[in-house]
Amino acid sequence: IMGFFRKIWSFIQKALKIGRNDPRKLIHCLKVGVALSFVSLFYYMRPLYEGVGGNAMWAVLTVVVVFEYTVGATLYKCVNRASGTFLAGALGVGVHWIANQSGQRFEPIILQSSVFILASAATFSRFIPSIKARFDYGALIFILTFSLVSVSGYRVEKLFELAHHRLSTIAIGTSICIIISMLICPVWAGNELHNLIKNNMEKLADSLDGCVANYFKNDANANNTKSGLGYRCVLSSKVTEESLANFARWEPAHGGFSFGHPWKEYLKVGASLRSSAYCIEALDSIINSDSKSSDILKKHFSKFCVELSSKSSAVLKELAVITNTMTKSSKIDFIVEEMNNAAQELQNAMKSLSKQPIASTVTKLGGSDAGLDIVPLVEIVPLVTVSSLLIEIAARTENIAKA
Amino acid sequence: IMGFFRKIWSFIQKALKIGRNDPRKLIHCLKVGVALSFVSLFYYMRPLYEGVGGNAMWAVLTVVVVFEYTVGATLYKCVNRASGTFLAGALGVGVHWIANQSGQRFEPIILQSSVFILASAATFSRFIPSIKARFDYGALIFILTFSLVSVSGYRVEKLFELAHHRLSTIAIGTSICIIISMLICPVWAGNELHNLIKNNMEKLADSLDGCVANYFKNDANANNTKSGLGYRCVLSSKVTEESLANFARWEPAHGGFSFGHPWKEYLKVGASLRSSAYCIEALDSIINSDSKSSDILKKHFSKFCVELSSKSSAVLKELAVITNTMTKSSKIDFIVEEMNNAAQELQNAMKSLSKQPIASTVTKLGGSDAGLDIVPLVEIVPLVTVSSLLIEIAARTENIAKA
Repeated sequence: IMGFFRKIWSFIQKALKIGRNDPRKLIHCLKVGVALSFVSLFYYMRPLYEGVGGNAMWAVLTVVVVFEYTVGATLYKCVNRASGTFLAGALGVGVHWIANQSGQRFEPIILQSSVFILASAATFSRFIPSIKARFDYGALIFILTFSLVSVSGYRVEKLFELAHHRLSTIAIGTSICIIISMLICPVWAGNELHNLIKNNMEKLADSLDGCVANYFKNDANANNTKSGLGYRCVLSSKVTEESLANFARWEPAHGGFSFGHPWKEYLKVGASLRSSAYCIEALDSIINSDSKSSDILKKHFSKFCVELSSKSSAVLKELAVITNTMTKSSKIDFIVEEMNNAAQELQNAMKSLSKQPIASTVTKLGGSDAGLDIVPLVEIVPLVTVSSLLIEIAARTENIAKA
Repeated sequence: IMGFFRKIWSFIQKALKIGRNDPRKLIHCLKVGVALSFVSLFYYMRPLYEGVGGNAMWAVLTVVVVFEYTVGATLYKCVNRASGTFLAGALGVGVHWIANQSGQRFEPIILQSSVFILASAATFSRFIPSIKARFDYGALIFILTFSLVSVSGYRVEKLFELAHHRLSTIAIGTSICIIISMLICPVWAGNELHNLIKNNMEKLADSLDGCVANYFKNDANANNTKSGLGYRCVLSSKVTEESLANFARWEPAHGGFSFGHPWKEYLKVGASLRSSAYCIEALDSIINSDSKSSDILKKHFSKFCVELSSKSSAVLKELAVITNTMTKSSKIDFIVEEMNNAAQELQNAMKSLSKQPIASTVTKLGGSDAGLDIVPLVEIVPLVTVSSLLIEIAARTENIAKA
């Protein structure tokens, strides 16, 4: 029994930690509570209750299903729900009218087959990528409403009234959701995406620095685990980025972003960041592998390597600053220039090494193992350069789009 | 107008292509249609209609919302929906009873505050990772049902009857969904995961082969784009793997898999496959970069490199076969041994190169650039070895779990 209580206690502590780390999540929970109490108020007030009919529970249902963490996701669901319901309702009424005209005998057949065909078609449309990205939820609601309308219509004769009630309750629910999610501490998907990209840049810079510095310091491996793990987040951030960009498209202008903000550019920047992260991953795995190199060669190259990596991470950090302030900085050209120079120097050093007789200082394993250590760094150079140039281009197009 | 029609036509063609590539998706759509028509039959039959009451639409709603592509996802949603509804219904009735006892004045206050508190708490629980993975949908349904019960209870006095109706309609809906999704051409999440991992192994092997062969062939770069792209799918398959493994946990025994199949092992295998894919990505970017090496050195090493890469990909392919048949093969040890030998040979060749005076055949850039080309291959060796060993271990634990 004590073990059970201890388990619960650790669970509560974990939950509290989540709340402390991101108070916006707590606020979100309270927002859901507020929206629900607000909607149920409609139910308690008798005059309103009579006005909207017994379908007031649709408003509650809408609020629960539609309310999401970010404003973009909420808007996406609201728009999809409203349009899906409207379209399916209109179609349902139309099919119903046709079925009514064709007599008692064909009525159930027509209704059944229309449900079958339309449900299959709408389900299939959810597999098409371009529709899935934008109208997945709408297709679901379409199937739902259409089958409800055509099925219930067989009994309830007052279809139009029902449709009117459903639409008005959904309108009440969605408007409450939109108002509350936008007015009380809004969490904008666009903002989140922006910060994610910025943080990823900083993490990459840190872990690049940490990796190289640790390798050439060579004294203690204790602190290499901490700074080196930043790039792992970058590796797995693809899905988050895509869904945020998808939701951000639905959001109105907020903060420094206008409505037509080029969110797709962010995806490109994210992709190039990820390809740099792959490189750092490879570099990291080499550094942590067994193969030891001679200390003399290491010292010979450490200056150039550390220089290069610090320049690269400086570029990344400057890019993070640029993204943050969304202004074009003249400093970035200068730093990129410096980085390219450092890369050139390292390559020159390697060439000069290959010219001089290797047997002089390094007797046995020098040549091959020095290669083993240095090449990954050289390897990272073109990619970092390419990706940083890509990032620069993307950042510039953004700035142009802003200005 | 012609442009509009052409757009629609290309859209239809795209849709047909999806259907042709994966006929199971088409079957899934038909299954949804069948389930919906089946459920609406309940509505048309009068005696049943009287039995379940006007709430028959809950059955329709359940079918639409719960029916998913894989059996595991359907089961997950069914279990979550049923347990969420039951828990919330019981709690709602309890709160209602307390509110009734405390008199006319406190009743709305108690109901409102309970909705507020429980909705906030359930929303918060959806942010906790361990709950999100398993009971995300259940928490949503909990909020929904609880607020519906406590709100509507204020009006309708016959709460128990309502609860009974909702539960029975949901039971009808879920049982229809489960039966149809499991009997008619079932798509098992576990099977999908299994095939995904197997295909990823084969793709990795192909792209490793393609990459290295193309580099050393050096005559035409035309066909390198095709075979080299396989590893990209491996890079981005993480989320799919995780959700499939999550759903596979809910599935009963099917095919060659028992109920307690170690699905988590698949995630580990997937992770090590992905780390090899990062390596191939780095290798590929080097091969495609500008730096040219001397032809003599290239020829010198091409034998060892091609040998090593073909052995590595042979290991991967053999692993794919093992995973496919789920039997332990004695061949794999032998091939791994061969791969390790090939790796050793390549390293020996590099050592011998560094011993002999470099200036003899390669005059200027040889030493450094040969390093540039070969080292990535060496770099890939430990990782492939490690990951293949890891995969072997994982495959063996599976086999042990099987046998």
